[in-house]
Amino acid sequence: MLKFSCDYMEGCHPAILRRLAEVNLVKNDGYGYDPYSQSAIAKIRAACELPEAEVRLLVGGTQTNTIVLDALLRHNQGVLAAATGHINVHESGAIEACGHKVMPQPATDGKIDLDHLEQHLAALKTEYDAVGWEHYVVPKVLYVSFPTEMGTLYSRAELERMRALCDRYHLHLFVDGARLGYGLMSPACDITLPELARLCDVFYIGGTKVGAMFGEAVVVTNRELTIPRGLIKQRGALLAKGWLLGLQFDTLMTNGLYFDISLGAITQAMRLRDGLLAKGYRMHGESPTNQQFFVMPNDRLPALAEQVGFDHFSPFDEHHTLVRLCTSWATTAEQINQLLQCL
Amino acid sequence: MLKFSCDYMEGCHPAILRRLAEVNLVKNDGYGYDPYSQSAIAKIRAACELPEAEVRLLVGGTQTNTIVLDALLRHNQGVLAAATGHINVHESGAIEACGHKVMPQPATDGKIDLDHLEQHLAALKTEYDAVGWEHYVVPKVLYVSFPTEMGTLYSRAELERMRALCDRYHLHLFVDGARLGYGLMSPACDITLPELARLCDVFYIGGTKVGAMFGEAVVVTNRELTIPRGLIKQRGALLAKGWLLGLQFDTLMTNGLYFDISLGAITQAMRLRDGLLAKGYRMHGESPTNQQFFVMPNDRLPALAEQVGFDHFSPFDEHHTLVRLCTSWATTAEQINQLLQCL
Amino acid sequence: MLKFSCDYMEGCHPAILRRLAEVNLVKNDGYGYDPYSQSAIAKIRAACELPEAEVRLLVGGTQTNTIVLDALLRHNQGVLAAATGHINVHESGAIEACGHKVMPQPATDGKIDLDHLEQHLAALKTEYDAVGWEHYVVPKVLYVSFPTEMGTLYSRAELERMRALCDRYHLHLFVDGARLGYGLMSPACDITLPELARLCDVFYIGGTKVGAMFGEAVVVTNRELTIPRGLIKQRGALLAKGWLLGLQFDTLMTNGLYFDISLGAITQAMRLRDGLLAKGYRMHGESPTNQQFFVMPNDRLPALAEQVGFDHFSPFDEHHTLVRLCTSWATTAEQINQLLQCL
Amino acid sequence: MLKFSCDYMEGCHPAILRRLAEVNLVKNDGYGYDPYSQSAIAKIRAACELPEAEVRLLVGGTQTNTIVLDALLRHNQGVLAAATGHINVHESGAIEACGHKVMPQPATDGKIDLDHLEQHLAALKTEYDAVGWEHYVVPKVLYVSFPTEMGTLYSRAELERMRALCDRYHLHLFVDGARLGYGLMSPACDITLPELARLCDVFYIGGTKVGAMFGEAVVVTNRELTIPRGLIKQRGALLAKGWLLGLQFDTLMTNGLYFDISLGAITQAMRLRDGLLAKGYRMHGESPTNQQFFVMPNDRLPALAEQVGFDHFSPFDEHHTLVRLCTSWATTAEQINQLLQCL
Repeated sequence: MLKFSCDYMEGCHPAILRRLAEVNLVKNDGYGYDPYSQSAIAKIRAACELPEAEVRLLVGGTQTNTIVLDALLRHNQGVLAAATGHINVHESGAIEACGHKVMPQPATDGKIDLDHLEQHLAALKTEYDAVGWEHYVVPKVLYVSFPTEMGTLYSRAELERMRALCDRYHLHLFVDGARLGYGLMSPACDITLPELARLCDVFYIGGTKVGAMFGEAVVVTNRELTIPRGLIKQRGALLAKGWLLGLQFDTLMTNGLYFDISLGAITQAMRLRDGLLAKGYRMHGESPTNQQFFVMPNDRLPALAEQVGFDHFSPFDEHHTLVRLCTSWATTAEQINQLLQCL
Repeated sequence: MLKFSCDYMEGCHPAILRRLAEVNLVKNDGYGYDPYSQSAIAKIRAACELPEAEVRLLVGGTQTNTIVLDALLRHNQGVLAAATGHINVHESGAIEACGHKVMPQPATDGKIDLDHLEQHLAALKTEYDAVGWEHYVVPKVLYVSFPTEMGTLYSRAELERMRALCDRYHLHLFVDGARLGYGLMSPACDITLPELARLCDVFYIGGTKVGAMFGEAVVVTNRELTIPRGLIKQRGALLAKGWLLGLQFDTLMTNGLYFDISLGAITQAMRLRDGLLAKGYRMHGESPTNQQFFVMPNDRLPALAEQVGFDHFSPFDEHHTLVRLCTSWATTAEQINQLLQCL
Repeated sequence: MLKFSCDYMEGCHPAILRRLAEVNLVKNDGYGYDPYSQSAIAKIRAACELPEAEVRLLVGGTQTNTIVLDALLRHNQGVLAAATGHINVHESGAIEACGHKVMPQPATDGKIDLDHLEQHLAALKTEYDAVGWEHYVVPKVLYVSFPTEMGTLYSRAELERMRALCDRYHLHLFVDGARLGYGLMSPACDITLPELARLCDVFYIGGTKVGAMFGEAVVVTNRELTIPRGLIKQRGALLAKGWLLGLQFDTLMTNGLYFDISLGAITQAMRLRDGLLAKGYRMHGESPTNQQFFVMPNDRLPALAEQVGFDHFSPFDEHHTLVRLCTSWATTAEQINQLLQCL
Repeated sequence: MLKFSCDYMEGCHPAILRRLAEVNLVKNDGYGYDPYSQSAIAKIRAACELPEAEVRLLVGGTQTNTIVLDALLRHNQGVLAAATGHINVHESGAIEACGHKVMPQPATDGKIDLDHLEQHLAALKTEYDAVGWEHYVVPKVLYVSFPTEMGTLYSRAELERMRALCDRYHLHLFVDGARLGYGLMSPACDITLPELARLCDVFYIGGTKVGAMFGEAVVVTNRELTIPRGLIKQRGALLAKGWLLGLQFDTLMTNGLYFDISLGAITQAMRLRDGLLAKGYRMHGESPTNQQFFVMPNDRLPALAEQVGFDHFSPFDEHHTLVRLCTSWATTAEQINQLLQCL
């Protein structure tokens, strides 16, 4: 059966598997003290044009979000996020479980409404100044996903505006890049990796959904911040065989592989989008990345489900459902052809 | 200066102070193993008509909300509350700090919109069933304040509807009664203490704002639940001189003192309300309890502030502010007369 | 019945009760923004000869230990304490519940073995340097009780040695002063309050056991540290009627009342000690403070228990029990006379 | 260079790598809802002779210990462990970070002193009964490693004694099996996997150190307990590509591969041990498993370190160091031959 329900169904890019096989019986030091990890970190720094940035290689997205936020927040500090943000709705309360409030913000198609955010921050400051900050959760981090959970992208101007808001209100800007490659390689993207890196304080280069078997590479671009290794260990996230992460990111960051395969997913996503539009489907949210959302009559869902695995994203109206289809680094043109025949 | 900004400015009812003085140098056993606490608990059970209910005497409101919710929730379970609820906005993230998400719900004048809540619970169940409950925060407690933070009251019918929703969705109903007396003694209240006790799983009888120097009496009416003493100790809330709490609640629960002084506050609040209406002020939220909210032109605020301590609750519009005035168990008719002359 | 089982059985010094009665119906601003609290803080700073020290007024001991340590520790940092220290054995795991390990150290009569501590810190550093600090709990605070839970006192020389160890290993020195007055006024004490304040980073002046109804005054003597008010609120420890704490400490710190009543307890404790020795009892631990420990044959315990409330501290050997008797600020000479007749 | 410093330096058994390559581009459902995971769980249940046991596939050891203990403990409950146990010394305070005290117990060569444990549990009960359980950390889990961190093994009789103690004191018995295969296949082991499973409440079959790239298979043998999937997700431990875990354990549990490769490690460890003894080294701790500890003169360490990677386990005395050498499933006879030539 065709499967397009998410972008983490395959294993890893064959180049990674080849290298894994080559070094499988080589003995490596543990916990990231291996040459692959060092090489991967050097390449990530180079790609970000930040030669001294702290880089941490972690296993998965919820783990990464939790550890980064736990490192950045203290006591009654909280994190601002789109109401539809991954940390607010799909991580089982992981942020709260490490003691911090997610402060949900109105969002459209996954993107935080920046006018509202600006007013909200001003209003909070007025209220807190009047009553006393100690009674409130104090926002300290602004969390945004790039691309968002709805496939949309913030523009460079929007990111710069967020940076300015963060500076004004003493917030750290944390970019969840679980699908970073699919954002950066989108034709709609108007920002480069080094530019994005400079605008935020912490971000990560997602591997799990973009060619790696697993792995997220956190880049701390603000030199005054750190993600302590002791915290990573304590959270059970310091992989004994850290070289597995190093080798994967070293491979992905060599000769632009990460970006090339991301572009492949975007190319197929755009073919899918064009095909859906040609068939008269109504798209939802203008996603320029690898997740495509469209409106499907409910009475056609059962037949489709016999041929294609997809994601019933949410009810759209009484008679329609919002369906999500994802491409990935591994999606082939032939798979999209077959998919379009089923739709 | 006249002060009406909150209901916890005075010490305690003189009857409590008299008893404190009488027994001040008597040696009592610690941690609640004293005769006053035992007597207070017996009287609370009697007033609730629940002879076997677990009763815990704690010091303050945020402490109580945190401990009760920590006792009732596990792992990825969360608590539904009005977006304006105390635990969501005024406790500095205390609930999240013990690991649990507050799930804010739309509310009007402090009261949760029950139609929305009913739809929301149904929609969550549908979504969780489809995707897998492990990815989500699972609501396990419904928290409501009685009266609410806006002075309003749920009717018996509304409480019964919440009970039915809790039963259907396996939620515990927890009533924050920090101002319980001011709710029960309101002319608008159509429920008795024993009836309220039976409808919820846990509630508390607020003392700090209703005649006690400090203290909140938690009543666990659902016999399958418990607030462990070990949790209370661990949270630094097991008062060494627990008899201070026992003696206060024993006094308040004797001969209906708690209810008599609550009624006094309501009587003065209604006089204040009538006076405000007579002067042409626009009231906000129809509060039938001890907190009165009204709309004040901004240009009159400075002059008022010279004579009266009040609470700038929030901006109302560009030119007006929502002002809160509170009566308490200690408010006299003469104080209200003076206040009305200033308005 | 005579009761000597602990030092927190009475209410408060009559001078406090008088002032409470005087101001009971005065309306005070909440959360410590009242004149009594400001005055108390000024007097505490003066007594410590630290005019700029941060002072926080909290309710009880476990609450205070938890909040101070939560403020001082991060992630994989822990607190060194005597194995017999209050935080290690009598606080229901409160420190661990806020995420931090108590690292128990060998102790004699309640005092940490400093030779062992010095070797232990050196050994830890060697091990951590070799393997990597991220795998371990990193000690960051040294917690000591003054007096200890066994009534003993560290000498000035011992405190200076601890200070030097803390400086060498980048530790904060935190002194639990739940019974501080009984330590400072002991004839065996060779350090003054200002000297103690200068040697440590944080300490507290215990009120609950020394004349107050309740209350502990935390003094942060290291100007680089802080106990955030937002943390206090979040932990449910920001008393709404903070003026209750202010008024109590203002009274105790006026004209040396705190020290005078502490001395009274010591005087009676020394009379008790002399009486016990005169009767041939074997004392345990050479306590020069208000807690006296002695060895009692088990077969005499039931008769004693009919007349006197005491604390079965621990089994001493097969046929004897270690008994604790405490005096307090309220203990009278006549009470000691009666007690000695029962022994 | 020869490396014997730990048992997690290689990748995975070639059979696993082969299967990974075969299915690399197959699209699998996420979060463990894949056929490999289902098959692995079935084989694990069969091997344990517990057809209904709950099995959870997690990534690493610290993560597993934290999640299991967080699932089993509440509030002021703690976990008893050898003072040398992994959770007490090598997990960066992970257990405390989830709110629970590790209660260290005297141990010899990694094994808890059971006579002492029995007396300790009895003494705790006496003390807690007298003073009140709410003041204390209440032991609720007994954690033991099999094999221990020193390579030693509990006998069946010792495990049965622990089971009896657990039953008497209402404790859960949790066996850390990070090196389970190396324990079960030791000639000194007198218990089978099904027997071990029946004696404890929860244990795990370690993969990271025994043939897998990563992975630990938790088996909840007590049907009244559960490790909630929501907790796993919340802790960032629900691997998106859960099929990676499933496929690895499915391979290891097929045709006894896990046990065969464990035996290989033991065979080489025994050859190493014999070789060391033949060369006159003093062994430490009589380890019958894959970790061998011996005493090395400090002046010979630098020369050895040029040829062999080993673990400076701890100082032995002024002039000697306790050295640890580990074999693994991948260790060859030739490697041991070379190693012995260097010693």
